[in-house]
Amino acid sequence: MTTTPSTPQPEAARGDRVDGRTPDQLREVTIERGWSAHAEGSALISFGRTRVLCTASFTPGVPRWKKGSGSGWVTAEYAMLPRATSTRSDRESVKGKIGGRTHEISRLIGRSLRAIIDLDALGENTIQIDCDVLQADGGTRTAAITGAYVALADAVSWGKRHTAIPAARTVLTDSVSAVSVGIIDGRPLLDLEYREDVHAGTDMNVVVTGAGQFVEVQGTAEGAPFDRAELDALLDLAVDGCGRLAAIQRETLGTSR
Amino acid sequence: MTTTPSTPQPEAARGDRVDGRTPDQLREVTIERGWSAHAEGSALISFGRTRVLCTASFTPGVPRWKKGSGSGWVTAEYAMLPRATSTRSDRESVKGKIGGRTHEISRLIGRSLRAIIDLDALGENTIQIDCDVLQADGGTRTAAITGAYVALADAVSWGKRHTAIPAARTVLTDSVSAVSVGIIDGRPLLDLEYREDVHAGTDMNVVVTGAGQFVEVQGTAEGAPFDRAELDALLDLAVDGCGRLAAIQRETLGTSR
Amino acid sequence: MTTTPSTPQPEAARGDRVDGRTPDQLREVTIERGWSAHAEGSALISFGRTRVLCTASFTPGVPRWKKGSGSGWVTAEYAMLPRATSTRSDRESVKGKIGGRTHEISRLIGRSLRAIIDLDALGENTIQIDCDVLQADGGTRTAAITGAYVALADAVSWGKRHTAIPAARTVLTDSVSAVSVGIIDGRPLLDLEYREDVHAGTDMNVVVTGAGQFVEVQGTAEGAPFDRAELDALLDLAVDGCGRLAAIQRETLGTSR
Amino acid sequence: MTTTPSTPQPEAARGDRVDGRTPDQLREVTIERGWSAHAEGSALISFGRTRVLCTASFTPGVPRWKKGSGSGWVTAEYAMLPRATSTRSDRESVKGKIGGRTHEISRLIGRSLRAIIDLDALGENTIQIDCDVLQADGGTRTAAITGAYVALADAVSWGKRHTAIPAARTVLTDSVSAVSVGIIDGRPLLDLEYREDVHAGTDMNVVVTGAGQFVEVQGTAEGAPFDRAELDALLDLAVDGCGRLAAIQRETLGTSR
Amino acid sequence: MTTTPSTPQPEAARGDRVDGRTPDQLREVTIERGWSAHAEGSALISFGRTRVLCTASFTPGVPRWKKGSGSGWVTAEYAMLPRATSTRSDRESVKGKIGGRTHEISRLIGRSLRAIIDLDALGENTIQIDCDVLQADGGTRTAAITGAYVALADAVSWGKRHTAIPAARTVLTDSVSAVSVGIIDGRPLLDLEYREDVHAGTDMNVVVTGAGQFVEVQGTAEGAPFDRAELDALLDLAVDGCGRLAAIQRETLGTSR
Amino acid sequence: MTTTPSTPQPEAARGDRVDGRTPDQLREVTIERGWSAHAEGSALISFGRTRVLCTASFTPGVPRWKKGSGSGWVTAEYAMLPRATSTRSDRESVKGKIGGRTHEISRLIGRSLRAIIDLDALGENTIQIDCDVLQADGGTRTAAITGAYVALADAVSWGKRHTAIPAARTVLTDSVSAVSVGIIDGRPLLDLEYREDVHAGTDMNVVVTGAGQFVEVQGTAEGAPFDRAELDALLDLAVDGCGRLAAIQRETLGTSR
Repeated sequence: MTTTPSTPQPEAARGDRVDGRTPDQLREVTIERGWSAHAEGSALISFGRTRVLCTASFTPGVPRWKKGSGSGWVTAEYAMLPRATSTRSDRESVKGKIGGRTHEISRLIGRSLRAIIDLDALGENTIQIDCDVLQADGGTRTAAITGAYVALADAVSWGKRHTAIPAARTVLTDSVSAVSVGIIDGRPLLDLEYREDVHAGTDMNVVVTGAGQFVEVQGTAEGAPFDRAELDALLDLAVDGCGRLAAIQRETLGTSR
Repeated sequence: MTTTPSTPQPEAARGDRVDGRTPDQLREVTIERGWSAHAEGSALISFGRTRVLCTASFTPGVPRWKKGSGSGWVTAEYAMLPRATSTRSDRESVKGKIGGRTHEISRLIGRSLRAIIDLDALGENTIQIDCDVLQADGGTRTAAITGAYVALADAVSWGKRHTAIPAARTVLTDSVSAVSVGIIDGRPLLDLEYREDVHAGTDMNVVVTGAGQFVEVQGTAEGAPFDRAELDALLDLAVDGCGRLAAIQRETLGTSR
Repeated sequence: MTTTPSTPQPEAARGDRVDGRTPDQLREVTIERGWSAHAEGSALISFGRTRVLCTASFTPGVPRWKKGSGSGWVTAEYAMLPRATSTRSDRESVKGKIGGRTHEISRLIGRSLRAIIDLDALGENTIQIDCDVLQADGGTRTAAITGAYVALADAVSWGKRHTAIPAARTVLTDSVSAVSVGIIDGRPLLDLEYREDVHAGTDMNVVVTGAGQFVEVQGTAEGAPFDRAELDALLDLAVDGCGRLAAIQRETLGTSR
Repeated sequence: MTTTPSTPQPEAARGDRVDGRTPDQLREVTIERGWSAHAEGSALISFGRTRVLCTASFTPGVPRWKKGSGSGWVTAEYAMLPRATSTRSDRESVKGKIGGRTHEISRLIGRSLRAIIDLDALGENTIQIDCDVLQADGGTRTAAITGAYVALADAVSWGKRHTAIPAARTVLTDSVSAVSVGIIDGRPLLDLEYREDVHAGTDMNVVVTGAGQFVEVQGTAEGAPFDRAELDALLDLAVDGCGRLAAIQRETLGTSR
Repeated sequence: MTTTPSTPQPEAARGDRVDGRTPDQLREVTIERGWSAHAEGSALISFGRTRVLCTASFTPGVPRWKKGSGSGWVTAEYAMLPRATSTRSDRESVKGKIGGRTHEISRLIGRSLRAIIDLDALGENTIQIDCDVLQADGGTRTAAITGAYVALADAVSWGKRHTAIPAARTVLTDSVSAVSVGIIDGRPLLDLEYREDVHAGTDMNVVVTGAGQFVEVQGTAEGAPFDRAELDALLDLAVDGCGRLAAIQRETLGTSR
Repeated sequence: MTTTPSTPQPEAARGDRVDGRTPDQLREVTIERGWSAHAEGSALISFGRTRVLCTASFTPGVPRWKKGSGSGWVTAEYAMLPRATSTRSDRESVKGKIGGRTHEISRLIGRSLRAIIDLDALGENTIQIDCDVLQADGGTRTAAITGAYVALADAVSWGKRHTAIPAARTVLTDSVSAVSVGIIDGRPLLDLEYREDVHAGTDMNVVVTGAGQFVEVQGTAEGAPFDRAELDALLDLAVDGCGRLAAIQRETLGTSR
């Protein structure tokens, strides 16, 4: 296991948020690349106290419905340890079924990664992403997407090193990261931690490519509906935050833009 | 059963979409109010060939976690008949589990309706919404939300007529409707039918109140990521379309704005 | 979708049953043939307020255990929408398992249809019948069988038109319909609606071919056991009622006897 | 455990059926009463090589929906050991769901027993019947009903001995037994064993009270539909066979008619 | 079905255990070989009131992961009838999942049998063992292993008689049996019945080959932890008891050591 | 989160095992106490590359069957992340059922902890242990037990600090740890890593109290059965290894013997 922790975020000007951040400040983000000894790619990512272990498993071959297509597949599963949260949740394996929220997030992660990978260039190989939340403090799905990209990138490199993918192919067309934004007491805030999340009137998760384009925009009025001006302010914050996450990803992977 | 079919949409100028619509034209929308003899509220809604049966079941009492709160609850379940689609799907009851897409849409419908109902005014009563897709041709979730509002409104009226809700309380704070928008061959289109949906590069579902504010914005890049200008164009189309759906809902329910 | 509603039953002499029928009178029966745009055969059938949507899905190929036999297969699934009934039932997909009643009726429908189809003449094709109860008011399984026959007949015709079945083969050897009968306050009655069903001492479902022979006889003493004379009276009523249903089926399909 | 084996059936005139029986002859029937050390009532019943272990579990109290009614409940579960049959079946516990046939038979046994018990006289007590097929050779459901009656009778006696039921109440209003009949090569036969069952054109299970009245009649055309004369012949055979089973039950229980 | 009951254990000197046994005395052990008419091997084994029906199903072929290996497979499933115990348990098929205890014992039986069979000599054949507890009074897993060996031996003989296994191969390398031992009030006891089992401070199940070697040792402190001297005393008792069970197995199968 | 890493094991004399250890040498053991921000007790334990996150959740109240007993409960769940192993396993939540191995280990952990806790002293409180294997390299269940004890101890302290448990009560009567031992090429080895585990002829897991007594002994012959002398050698190794683990636990918790 080689660990490449990213440089912690520089301490920004002291703000008035619940944890002292300014409205447009990310929590401290760290990425331990290669945390797992077995997986072809892996990253333990932290957004503040939120910690998600992301692994990427590379397998030759594709699901039945893609056989013979010459094209590969990327899929993802998200889950939370039972005591990742402040009160323990029952295990989904014990309940015998997966909840709607879990399904929804798994699908979101898969779509986000497929937006920046050229499946034809991947060839008939499958990369299975697993994002397991070890500790939750808000923003678990956005941390998962951001960390999963690092694991994916390493699994693609593994595939090239092991000649499962031709070295010359450009498999990843861009990077991808995600962040949550929300409106609390009428003020747009970046990267909500749990104490903020529960008070947010509007909650939005935004997935953005390294080039600054949108992959997914999911905004929900938890309380009062929101208007166009609020939506615009949230999108501005999110695009800016994802830009900083993309820089951290590049630093972790040792890639230049 | 009293049936109140809405006036079909006036025939707009002939456009060049796959079914002859113009980019900003809704499909023909009809709502058969009170389709079900048993439910406290119901509507069979059609967006073109998409048909969804929406029922609202009114029950005194609330789930355990709301008992004693003085406040009510609205929840929703979405499902599709096995041959609603062009090829038959296995029943989720036979498979023994509910797919992620089903879960995701059920949760979306519930959130959308809860955004325009005052749960305190509802009192300790539960309204369970069921949206069953009898025939699918794109936009099933947006038709479901739009029809579910009509069923919900009638179930609230039922509750007032049967004195479960004080007549003087304003339970519904606004109406809510939804529509899909997407970008096909670089052109933003309103209310995609299935043949359009499969070719859309970006697909967005927007839920809007009668007053024109956002309840939910869910945009996904199916192909290439999208930029801010495209996002803006799609939101404009959606807000306009929802305004027309709100008018059809008012006409169906015989309410003035 | 082409809709061929059957002629409503002529108004019979006014009787003294709960809804004004005479003991041997069917409820009003209507069949909307081709209700579904996607299915190879379909019918929305009503027995009074009971409404069942029946679709027939034609697929080349057979289940594994019939492969290479040269013979086809017909199978059926029955289900009820959650608010088809006067109080809402939980979805079987949500409960994660199918109830005994549902299984029992699905199997009955399948057996009834297989009794009048020549599976060898069908060739290695499968017809999957789905009967979804949109509204229930007694007699859902008998309406389902009666409507499913119409959907099946159209799916067979579809197979012939698309050359999946040789046009010259006689695939359907007869028609099939079903009706419920029961004893209430000592009096045998035809085609029980729900209010009658709950008071029936003996309840019987009878499936009869167009030629008037029995495919299935299922009689149950809900209260006191019944004797041979009662059984005989019920069978007489049922055979007569099924004769009238067979005439409605012929009219709907435009076939002569 | 006290074991009271019933007298084996006297050897009847040699017939020409597959096992040498005449058309109206039962297989050898034995009932080991009290086979189980733990259950309040139990019987190991054999119809030839078909062997079913029936237990009756007596519990004070009733399911929630009967609480406060003053009335009791009888319910039944039927199951088959995996190697009861000539080829092994997967366990339903391993498959995680119960098949339609199992459900159907469990419900039939429960209804049959409830037809001859006065639930008010039982008081707020529940008797749970379990019928587990240890070896199957046709007629498992009819053997189950016939044996379950013996177990039920002993559980009722247990309830009276332990004062859970007032000794003076008549709880069982009659006995109940069941037998299968079928048409093979045009000939009506009583109590089909497996080799006969698979060739039967029509197959009927009939449940009859000690007084000779019908509780349940379930006839199915496996091949060609059947006519009224065939139905009548089968019913005659079944009523006669059940009369002999009722005599064996009385002998086993040491009761006079 | 040929039944070969083993000679009941000779009556030993009267002891002071709850049922009159001495500390090192087995309960009466009987084995009805060939109890099942259908299975390739079967045994109904009793350890006192504990009765387990063991069947062995012989099938050509192996699970996918062994295909082409030239080697066979033996697997086992254990289950309990709902009223095998003094109070009824819910069926695992009804609950829709298998409990941990059931899984654990199924795996133990499979491992124990695989320890004494040469899977290469078995060839690409599978023997599926089913152990169903008809009545439970302690020691069900040890009775199951002991009876399963007899069923397995007969299934292997069946395979040789039907030429699925070359007659000359030695498939079974030894016999295997199992017994429970425990410490009650400080005293080591052999073959605990239920009343003893619930009071045991330490409970151990030991699986031993005919040659007296260990296949499995599972000791658990139910109350106070146990020391090395106690462990040694329990192992001595168990090895001795298994020696006597091996003799009964040999007698049942008519084999000499 | 306060982290108290235990002192790494001193480097022992270089041995000839696959990773250079001597036969009686543990892998490097580290325990990060308080790894989880939310749980009342937690430990991230490593046995070499095997890493298990153990959390202890303290809840007032007990399961229904213990209510009013004055006594508490400790239970445990064990699970493995899908890519904890060298090839990915399907999630049990996705499969919808828990495997036998998972059940077995969960039960073992629970029993082991209950052996050293005085449930009466705990009072009517429940401690739920979760052991999630983040990375597996052999010995996951023994690492889980050893780490779970640390989490349990901290949860008990939490209960005392928050006055849910009277400070004066001795709740933990001893410590508990576990280690695997096995025979490879005829040689008994301590604490097998995965490459050793797959070659072990006999595999044993031993759970030992701080005082050196046995809580659980589970030995299995994977290949040839084992004899008494081998069993004795394995037990000696295990007791010695657990003594060293107990010392590490004491050091981590800052307790003296």
